Amino acid sequence: MPDSVKSASLVSPAAGGIAVPPVAKVGDALAQVATPSLLLDLDAFDANVARMASAAAARGVAVRPHAKAHKSTSIARAQMAAGAVGVCCQKVTEAIPFVNAGIGNIHISNEFVGEARVALAVAMAARVTLSVCVDDVRQVAPLGIAAKRAGVRISVLPEVDVGQGRCGVASTDGVAKLVDAIDHYEGLHFGGLQAYHGSAQHIANWDERRDTARQAADKAAAYVGFLEARGITCPVVTGGGTGTAEFDIESGVYTEIQPGSYVFLDGHYGSLEWRDDWRFKHGLFLASTVMSTARPGVIVCDAGLKSVATDSGLPRFWSSQQAGKPHYRTASDEHGVLDLASPGEDSAPWLGETILLVPGHCDPTVNLYDRYVAVRHGRVEALWPIEARGLSQ
Amino acid sequence: MPDSVKSASLVSPAAGGIAVPPVAKVGDALAQVATPSLLLDLDAFDANVARMASAAAARGVAVRPHAKAHKSTSIARAQMAAGAVGVCCQKVTEAIPFVNAGIGNIHISNEFVGEARVALAVAMAARVTLSVCVDDVRQVAPLGIAAKRAGVRISVLPEVDVGQGRCGVASTDGVAKLVDAIDHYEGLHFGGLQAYHGSAQHIANWDERRDTARQAADKAAAYVGFLEARGITCPVVTGGGTGTAEFDIESGVYTEIQPGSYVFLDGHYGSLEWRDDWRFKHGLFLASTVMSTARPGVIVCDAGLKSVATDSGLPRFWSSQQAGKPHYRTASDEHGVLDLASPGEDSAPWLGETILLVPGHCDPTVNLYDRYVAVRHGRVEALWPIEARGLSQ
Repeated sequence: MPDSVKSASLVSPAAGGIAVPPVAKVGDALAQVATPSLLLDLDAFDANVARMASAAAARGVAVRPHAKAHKSTSIARAQMAAGAVGVCCQKVTEAIPFVNAGIGNIHISNEFVGEARVALAVAMAARVTLSVCVDDVRQVAPLGIAAKRAGVRISVLPEVDVGQGRCGVASTDGVAKLVDAIDHYEGLHFGGLQAYHGSAQHIANWDERRDTARQAADKAAAYVGFLEARGITCPVVTGGGTGTAEFDIESGVYTEIQPGSYVFLDGHYGSLEWRDDWRFKHGLFLASTVMSTARPGVIVCDAGLKSVATDSGLPRFWSSQQAGKPHYRTASDEHGVLDLASPGEDSAPWLGETILLVPGHCDPTVNLYDRYVAVRHGRVEALWPIEARGLSQ
Repeated sequence: MPDSVKSASLVSPAAGGIAVPPVAKVGDALAQVATPSLLLDLDAFDANVARMASAAAARGVAVRPHAKAHKSTSIARAQMAAGAVGVCCQKVTEAIPFVNAGIGNIHISNEFVGEARVALAVAMAARVTLSVCVDDVRQVAPLGIAAKRAGVRISVLPEVDVGQGRCGVASTDGVAKLVDAIDHYEGLHFGGLQAYHGSAQHIANWDERRDTARQAADKAAAYVGFLEARGITCPVVTGGGTGTAEFDIESGVYTEIQPGSYVFLDGHYGSLEWRDDWRFKHGLFLASTVMSTARPGVIVCDAGLKSVATDSGLPRFWSSQQAGKPHYRTASDEHGVLDLASPGEDSAPWLGETILLVPGHCDPTVNLYDRYVAVRHGRVEALWPIEARGLSQ
């Protein structure tokens, strides 16, 4: 039996505990930030927030940014300061930090079922202006009963399927039934329509994206018209995201847009075709350290699958230069393997270097971190907690 | 301007806060667990822990389970109780909760660089038996200086590349330089070799996996022989994972194996070819709720990209029956879309149902959650915190 087996069961109480060191301090240079970390470039962020706010305001369309992208009350406050009417959340628990932070108008842009979630929504409606989505009359009744019991009013928006084929009713009959069901409960009121086309956001070709957005708006308009013919006004038609915002604000149909990723511009959105000044700025980066250079031509960094979501592509090495950049080839749980531009190139000088990566998909990447390291001109300006990280229930 | 724009800037301080509800209580039935949640089936878990422990013990090989898979001190304690010699961690911060929980023997099975990490490792070495990996002499010197200053001893294992082509030196010359460098510092001592072949773990074909594991063991043996010829004994040869453990314990080369996923058997490992009684039991599940059934033939559940890692395939609907199972077709951030077995089938009865899913890849899925809901016979028996969740620095 080897020595290591004999020394088994070394479990013993530790005297005191070792604390997890902070990832960064205000004033740190980039090279001092513990890695992997999530960096937010504040100049890019500020410009992105202002750009979307001014474009929508110019068309009289409200911006209700989606907090599922950033999960941070610091970012929500910045968006509200820029004129947002409130935020969207995708899950009921995700909304809790925003309620607690005093964001006074929250839209749950998704269906939910079950007593516990209904109770939570009602508790929120006692504190903030709350709207929720439904696509089944069986979601309406428990909400109505609980809202009446608690003496709160909840705005309820039927979700209509405008092309994504995921949630939402797909017929005027379906919408009518939901409006009637909402009308039945005094704690509920009809708040308008949720008309979001998720997959349209991600169409790379600009013309095709515009056409798909128009088709979605046309479908939404048809439901609005159907309800108007029944004497029912839609106070809000909400939907649209980063990819289609430029079309949605011109549609004359949407009163409100729900963009999320625009504050970051992740690698996927960066790969789409954009026109005019609608290309947002890359604001979200991973700081990573090269921790192994044992092979020529290859560097291994400390950011793998637990530090970046890869569902929309691997992260990309960030550099203002296009030529000669290392290529992030493969991710394992805790490693990223990057090929240098020239095979066989000496990799040794890279050991210990901090590199920046642009994540492929911001939302699930953000959900891996507890805080943003907010930087400006290469210095840490603030640490912003990601309070809704992991709040997926 | 729509009403919603006029009501902008509703940020106001909340009176008191809404608390995030617990995902479950001990004694709850499955249907009471908030979703998405990470379930650990304790019967399967216990059997998996015992199976690996007994197989390795029968060959006199130590088990040092990899904590990167589970990130939980509760699971580490169960593994220690079954005879593990200690745990592996993949990052220095990941080890902190295990040090604090009194796991007395920890191996950082990965390279790391930088003053802050070296300082943390040295602090750990003052409390536990610590070993670390290196593949560059520039990683050795800072450790040696800091260890001497602190008066601690750290066991250092050169990592050799036995086929993966990621980290690790790939020549006897490289190993010799590292051993010499380690020998130079009185706070360090040569602890043996790290010889892990990550990609070998995932080869589906059993024969091919065995052959690749044998090639890795042969490479490790060659380094051991090289050192022995120089009068240097390798006290430990450590490596191997869930996929190759059955071969590694028979190799006569490995003194220690580092399996992680065996406690869970995720969807990917479940898809490999196994022989004899080496197929572990599925022990890790996602509990998810069907929250939309607006379309016939399709159900939409609340577990998407923020609740399950998809790098090794989408989650699979769990059922003991093979026929007639819904098929998880696509994941978006907060939604999973499943096709029912028959197109056009009435989906309405599924609304509100709790379903179980087997995640494709356990490690990054676990890293999305703060706790395991540990269940036995359909009841919650315990809640086990995932203390190292997010500790990737």
